[in-house]
Amino acid sequence: MEDTVKPGLRFSLLFEAEGRNESGYRTDITVHRRARQDESFFLPCDEGKVVGGEGTAPWPLCYFASGLTGCLSTHLRSFAKQLDIPLSKFSLTVKCSWEARQSGALPYKATPISFVVDIVLEGGASDRDKMRLIEAASQGCFVEQSLKPGLVVHRLKVGDGWVSV
Amino acid sequence: MEDTVKPGLRFSLLFEAEGRNESGYRTDITVHRRARQDESFFLPCDEGKVVGGEGTAPWPLCYFASGLTGCLSTHLRSFAKQLDIPLSKFSLTVKCSWEARQSGALPYKATPISFVVDIVLEGGASDRDKMRLIEAASQGCFVEQSLKPGLVVHRLKVGDGWVSV
Repeated sequence: MEDTVKPGLRFSLLFEAEGRNESGYRTDITVHRRARQDESFFLPCDEGKVVGGEGTAPWPLCYFASGLTGCLSTHLRSFAKQLDIPLSKFSLTVKCSWEARQSGALPYKATPISFVVDIVLEGGASDRDKMRLIEAASQGCFVEQSLKPGLVVHRLKVGDGWVSV
Repeated sequence: MEDTVKPGLRFSLLFEAEGRNESGYRTDITVHRRARQDESFFLPCDEGKVVGGEGTAPWPLCYFASGLTGCLSTHLRSFAKQLDIPLSKFSLTVKCSWEARQSGALPYKATPISFVVDIVLEGGASDRDKMRLIEAASQGCFVEQSLKPGLVVHRLKVGDGWVSV
């Protein structure tokens, strides 16, 4: 695995999660980043009490939403530098929506509806460069590129409104 | 939004992440579960020092891996009850792999390779029922159903080996 990114190269990433459930919805999860030197994080999950969990840890979908948001954020920062686009502070809001449909007594089936990403970029770049940056970050984002095509919508704050990218 | 699941119903889920980046790779992220009563969790991310981050928080892909693992785990537990399939302890290991490809000086593009889910179910169910449970959990998992088709591979521990589901 490469720990640095050089032009023309390919590199691989491997993240391995180990989950253990003893009872109920609480699942102890440790995630390892497999590389020359492994790094590990304890990221347990639970469901809230409203659906029968114990509320001892974040919902799984909170982790998913943080992962998508963080991966896009990382690529905005990294690629602004690579593309020489000025970027100071920025913020992004990601709305993730799903639907579950249940027929008869069978368990429900899940359907993703959309992941809407609203982005505010500060630092004085032109709107054209901001859009170019968002497009590049979208293509480089490991989470977004793992999702079904068409689900993620990006919007850039321009003046008082939002422009689809 | 429905906080309980009843046969024949549809329900919606909305999780909203708010991320703010001041500099570098550190991004402060708060995720809200939007429902009758919002629940919020602070799930900041960073990159490790090996790639220029500060290592102050988990990598974004750790959150993604935890989210996929936790969502599958939750559905195994929930649907075992609905399908009347005995389930005591269980564990799952999820290996998430991606590749990045960079041409010339352009930023790289991300490609997901596979998400391999190895599952060990205890509690005395038949192998056939275990496979039926995994299939149902796969269909109910909001994260998995958001991913490009064919990426997720499930394997059940049967005896000393693994059987694809």
